[in-house]
Amino acid sequence: MGNEPHVVILGAGFAGVAAMKMLRKAPVRVTVINKNDYQAFQPLLYQVATDVLSANEIGFPVRQMLHGHRAWAFHQAAVTGIDLGKRQVTVEGMEPISYDYLVIALGAVVNYFGTKGAAEHAFPLYTLADAERLKTHVLEGLEAVDKNPALIDDGALRFCVVGGGPTGVEIAGAMAELLDTELKQDYPNLPLDKAEIHLYEAGPQLLGPFKPGLRDYAKRALENLGVRVHLGVGVVAVESNRVHLKSGEMIKAHTLVWGAGLQANPLVSSLGIDLVKGRVPVNPDLSLKDHPEVFAAGDVAIVTEPKTSRPLPQLGSVAKQAGEHVGRTIAGLLRGKGRIPFRYRDRGTMATIGRGAAVAELPAGFTLTGPIAWMGWLLVHLVLLSGSIERSLTLRDWAWNILTRRRSKRIVVDVSRR
Amino acid sequence: MGNEPHVVILGAGFAGVAAMKMLRKAPVRVTVINKNDYQAFQPLLYQVATDVLSANEIGFPVRQMLHGHRAWAFHQAAVTGIDLGKRQVTVEGMEPISYDYLVIALGAVVNYFGTKGAAEHAFPLYTLADAERLKTHVLEGLEAVDKNPALIDDGALRFCVVGGGPTGVEIAGAMAELLDTELKQDYPNLPLDKAEIHLYEAGPQLLGPFKPGLRDYAKRALENLGVRVHLGVGVVAVESNRVHLKSGEMIKAHTLVWGAGLQANPLVSSLGIDLVKGRVPVNPDLSLKDHPEVFAAGDVAIVTEPKTSRPLPQLGSVAKQAGEHVGRTIAGLLRGKGRIPFRYRDRGTMATIGRGAAVAELPAGFTLTGPIAWMGWLLVHLVLLSGSIERSLTLRDWAWNILTRRRSKRIVVDVSRR
Repeated sequence: MGNEPHVVILGAGFAGVAAMKMLRKAPVRVTVINKNDYQAFQPLLYQVATDVLSANEIGFPVRQMLHGHRAWAFHQAAVTGIDLGKRQVTVEGMEPISYDYLVIALGAVVNYFGTKGAAEHAFPLYTLADAERLKTHVLEGLEAVDKNPALIDDGALRFCVVGGGPTGVEIAGAMAELLDTELKQDYPNLPLDKAEIHLYEAGPQLLGPFKPGLRDYAKRALENLGVRVHLGVGVVAVESNRVHLKSGEMIKAHTLVWGAGLQANPLVSSLGIDLVKGRVPVNPDLSLKDHPEVFAAGDVAIVTEPKTSRPLPQLGSVAKQAGEHVGRTIAGLLRGKGRIPFRYRDRGTMATIGRGAAVAELPAGFTLTGPIAWMGWLLVHLVLLSGSIERSLTLRDWAWNILTRRRSKRIVVDVSRR
Repeated sequence: MGNEPHVVILGAGFAGVAAMKMLRKAPVRVTVINKNDYQAFQPLLYQVATDVLSANEIGFPVRQMLHGHRAWAFHQAAVTGIDLGKRQVTVEGMEPISYDYLVIALGAVVNYFGTKGAAEHAFPLYTLADAERLKTHVLEGLEAVDKNPALIDDGALRFCVVGGGPTGVEIAGAMAELLDTELKQDYPNLPLDKAEIHLYEAGPQLLGPFKPGLRDYAKRALENLGVRVHLGVGVVAVESNRVHLKSGEMIKAHTLVWGAGLQANPLVSSLGIDLVKGRVPVNPDLSLKDHPEVFAAGDVAIVTEPKTSRPLPQLGSVAKQAGEHVGRTIAGLLRGKGRIPFRYRDRGTMATIGRGAAVAELPAGFTLTGPIAWMGWLLVHLVLLSGSIERSLTLRDWAWNILTRRRSKRIVVDVSRR
């Protein structure tokens, strides 16, 4: 140990973890730096926010994933800078770390597009902590209104969602189901039928990148669950109990979920390279221009699809495949292999709208809707999440919860209270 | 609904929940008030603190336990006062609540005995939030020392426990196992063999109420796990990284677990009755003097054992039986039955010292130590915790974790960080 090339991976999301796993048997020393001690399975955050799953069912400790590696270190720390010239990374509370290869997989942060009050009062849904905060807010809000029903007139039972992409659609559907299922048994004295869920999308349709038939289906499926879908309606300001629309209308609501957009981790602006839409442009092999030893993958990078000349979408599947490509490339370089361009294999995209309804867009133009799409979604996630005994145990419980409408135990452990 | 007698239960610990369950079929309206939305299974808090179990494996939502009741309400709120004359309870953020029958089961709070700095820096272990805080502190501390090994000289790997009762003995043993098992795989760069666990007991022995043979066994078993047991050593002050002993000695340690004592919930001092050792004295049927409609049970009450004239210990089993007695008494009164005195049936007490070692003191003078006592402990807790499908599922995973040395997933979801 000590003489092997040192691979430093920044970020343990889909891209960083995939790169890490591809380096398991490589003759390298791997250092992973991440601000949390776990990887969150982000596509299921809305299930944690609505308490179908508990946080530790979709959070996987990074250190445990590194057990099989030859020489490794993990640092739970915030990255504060990257010096491409010195080949060094600076990290909060540590000496600078030198690398031979660097994988930038720092992901994204929420983009509020300057919406007034959104950073303070809206509930984003990009991290596991976000999901826990939203769940706690909703459950504590129900306790409060149960004690003081007058809060209903102030909007305590009105839940707003901004953004008609997959995040917005999935959380709106899941919240409708949360309010419709066991909560009625849990709050017999609360008029939960007065609860309203509003979904605001500034553009003309839901699920923009999907085919028109799927978009219409998604809208109908949400409306069947009681969600009020507002297209072409923008949100301009947020207070703790008010939402202001572009039309000037003011909505009384204690909860606003922000599913409206992301931007690349702002740390990459310190790289001293020209960014594209705030993201890191990469060569076809995902390395950086003039820096063949540095790679970027996942939401932080912008990868142009050669066939369409359009950027690949910011999806978990793109991040995972890009991370695998980077890990394989570094391992290959050490065995004297050459670099090959990254090819994204589109295996389809999907979104669920509550239990039993989903839309799926498959390669070669096929589409699916309804219960069949939903079962497909369930299977795909079972496969994606599995790969260890631990994960399969989680999944068994999780599939069971979903199929039986049994939720995880709704408890809020408030560690701030002594 | 509305004409039934109104039973108000303050607190959803062992006593409050037991009383509640006994009233399920009774012709009453039940209102339960508790500061959390869950009941915590307190005897296993040390397992959450050392990450063998996750918080929602030993926290059970009170609302779900009330589903079978005829007419009920639950308020997640702090009780601010009890007016025995007006037969009213005052609650944070609500109108005063009138009762026909009142069950005071408000439990205890930690007693620091005026030890300087303890309230700010020591880690108690009486609530589920306490256990989560301790776990987070330990795991974040390991991450910090892994980044900065110089912290070892400052005491970052020295863990102190105050109090040689069951809480102190069980957490010291569990911490020794945590450091000795998978953590070594998770922190390959950390000299975990330098970690020290110190147990301080001001009195002359561990597990004071147990028989001498069991006390000696517990001390040997802890020492076999590497715990340094200090008898007759008091702690007089605590800082965030220092522990000051009565002898004047100063110990560098970043963690001090407080297992040294409890006092009854201070709210009972507002009752206007003469307390005994800060606790509520009760009639043989557990009702209050001059207030046959008010009962007290659990850690908040002091119950004198008629045979020995000594107070019953502050144990979960005493609280549970007392709560059942109160619930049965109220149900019986409504059917015209009389009051009978409470009789505690001692089914034994036990404490574990790591995996595979325990002490048990059974009725009729029998004692057990070693693996047999430990298996007995496991069985007793399986039985105590079960009673619903949800609980048995938990238990299956939990027994599995304990038997296979597989821990729950060590992740810290820090919701305070955006």
